[in-house]
Amino acid sequence: MIIFGVDPGLTRCGVGVIEAGIGRRLSFIHVDVIRSDPHTSQDLRLLTIFDGLTSKMDRFKPDAVSIERVFAQSNRNTVLGTAQAAGLAMLAAAQRGVPVALHTPTEAKLAISGNGKADKPQVERMVAAVLGLNALPTPADAADALSIAICHALRPQGALQGGEREQHLTTAQRQWAIATQRAQRRGGVRGGM
Amino acid sequence: MIIFGVDPGLTRCGVGVIEAGIGRRLSFIHVDVIRSDPHTSQDLRLLTIFDGLTSKMDRFKPDAVSIERVFAQSNRNTVLGTAQAAGLAMLAAAQRGVPVALHTPTEAKLAISGNGKADKPQVERMVAAVLGLNALPTPADAADALSIAICHALRPQGALQGGEREQHLTTAQRQWAIATQRAQRRGGVRGGM
Repeated sequence: MIIFGVDPGLTRCGVGVIEAGIGRRLSFIHVDVIRSDPHTSQDLRLLTIFDGLTSKMDRFKPDAVSIERVFAQSNRNTVLGTAQAAGLAMLAAAQRGVPVALHTPTEAKLAISGNGKADKPQVERMVAAVLGLNALPTPADAADALSIAICHALRPQGALQGGEREQHLTTAQRQWAIATQRAQRRGGVRGGM
Repeated sequence: MIIFGVDPGLTRCGVGVIEAGIGRRLSFIHVDVIRSDPHTSQDLRLLTIFDGLTSKMDRFKPDAVSIERVFAQSNRNTVLGTAQAAGLAMLAAAQRGVPVALHTPTEAKLAISGNGKADKPQVERMVAAVLGLNALPTPADAADALSIAICHALRPQGALQGGEREQHLTTAQRQWAIATQRAQRRGGVRGGM
């Protein structure tokens, strides 16, 4: 199972891709930061982030996209851009029929280190250890994206709430549901009446 | 000039399309609300809003997209979804090379009624009057999207700041700039060195 982790941001959007194998054995695939130029207009910045996310999703073909949850009470200067970057990651996943999960930073730290208040160097060391890397992942701040991916692989089963249940359709089931929904909106499918 | 106004929202996203002719004569083209089901997951809701926005942009081929500006200090329960819907409208415009402008509700009310604190019924009546409609626009709450479009048509010229300047490339110039930028990221254009 390929898991695509996203640490959303408008200036720097971290992406970490891992594979979760049998017995939850995890291996490293890719880590990177997609950047957009703060001096260009917001619409072009969003396009840059979206193009980066979609080209990576098309390259790594994830089975799940795990995104760090954004909170309204976060830093006022950056929260809207961060929420928009997270929204683009959700859109890119939905367009591909890939299920999305949102995890908090605390959940990620807990899953990786057993300590919801672990600091950044601790998290980086544990990410390297869990993935069997010889060196810390670089760029350093993309470790957060890997930790969000790892969190999804190691999350307790059955800990789902409300709207998250439908996320756990298989990719094929979701693609079918989305295609049907789109066709119905276009008036192309009227079966079942 | 076709102006595509957006009153962003995740549950209800208003769209109002007008034409600004010679002498700033304005005429009504379209008004609608794109809805997403609050009981489905957030990624599918964003996909529904994005599909609605892109199909309307492809239908009306706007020369400008005017979006109500979202503030971080807005209602905490809805601000993230609202920001994400605004981000999708910006993305859809950028993908089509259409310039984007953000206007505040106060700017829209000022442009339409001369009163930045006008109430909703006043704005609805003025939208109908400015567009020469015999009845108030329906659905009622989509009047905000029309007012954001009208605001863009009636905005004072030369009132642009910082990053907004590059918004005022023509559509063809922006499409060229975006295509060049994408090709450079893919390593496909190396000229000019």
